[in-house]
Amino acid sequence: MSSATMPANRLFTFAGVAAGTWRVDAVRPIVGESLPQVNFVNMLGETVPTPTTAVWLLRGIVSNERYVTRAEKTELVNKQQGLGRADSTRAALIPIRKSPAWWGLTQDERRAVLEEQSQHIKIGLKYLPAIARRLHHCRDLGPGEPFDFLTWFEFAPQDAPAFDELAAALRESPEWKFIDREVDIRLSRDAA
Amino acid sequence: MSSATMPANRLFTFAGVAAGTWRVDAVRPIVGESLPQVNFVNMLGETVPTPTTAVWLLRGIVSNERYVTRAEKTELVNKQQGLGRADSTRAALIPIRKSPAWWGLTQDERRAVLEEQSQHIKIGLKYLPAIARRLHHCRDLGPGEPFDFLTWFEFAPQDAPAFDELAAALRESPEWKFIDREVDIRLSRDAA
Repeated sequence: MSSATMPANRLFTFAGVAAGTWRVDAVRPIVGESLPQVNFVNMLGETVPTPTTAVWLLRGIVSNERYVTRAEKTELVNKQQGLGRADSTRAALIPIRKSPAWWGLTQDERRAVLEEQSQHIKIGLKYLPAIARRLHHCRDLGPGEPFDFLTWFEFAPQDAPAFDELAAALRESPEWKFIDREVDIRLSRDAA
Repeated sequence: MSSATMPANRLFTFAGVAAGTWRVDAVRPIVGESLPQVNFVNMLGETVPTPTTAVWLLRGIVSNERYVTRAEKTELVNKQQGLGRADSTRAALIPIRKSPAWWGLTQDERRAVLEEQSQHIKIGLKYLPAIARRLHHCRDLGPGEPFDFLTWFEFAPQDAPAFDELAAALRESPEWKFIDREVDIRLSRDAA
């Protein structure tokens, strides 16, 4: 789940709210505790004030990529498209937390689990450009964040089955043994 | 500059203050803008309130290591000693910022510059256990941090020349071409 290019805006807040842009179609706890039910989710940039009425707020920051090699990056950049496409009226917000065992691995060990064993990057590439995504890091925002990563995906309604396939493939991979909390939030918005 | 083990306390604030624990012996801007002169620096954990009278505050968080392999980590762990040794009455706080060119490199490229070209890890190992250190990450605390990393070093007075050697070796390495701001703050405290 690597990010595309570094946007000018790096810090994003996802707000679970009563009324907003992205309608919540389903919230499913995959591992560990779920999040309180909300009707809508808004994705807010740094300069947008966070709503005081939000049921929950999750913050994440776009950062440098931690695992991709130059060859993989070139392939990603050539294939991927940005967020905000007109026909991308479906989205998924997937907050995950990785276990202390993951964070105790060294870089070479984490890369081996993520790609050589789990093909995380290769699986993502397979679904480009249909499934656009942006990865937000939470773990180093401070010591009290509930998740380590928030991944945001956007796609057209006809690509929803492809997204299910992608999510299932990752969840069956050895990397997912290191996930100790995951919530799967599916969203939709009206076409512009 | 890898960190040892993950302390319970991850977020630290370095406060430039008028009176405190570590007396400032010298502040030297190596690249880019310096920091305002102060007489003392205090290192504060998460639970310690930050002083409202500080001249400057720099925050950093201890995180997972980004480059070391398992073999390197084993060697580091076997050789290193912790902060707070009774005879460690000298310290250095070295805030650095890396350039956009660095952050645009992929993981394999950054590792190649840091270790295969610059021997950053190997140089640090050479000065263990005399020079103890802890690396704090700032870049992903938020979008407005003035530095990317704060490294804190502690050593005995007789090891001050060895620390100078270590700092000089790193500054001559290819990795340092990617440093666009660096301040070198030398400190001392009274023996307990």
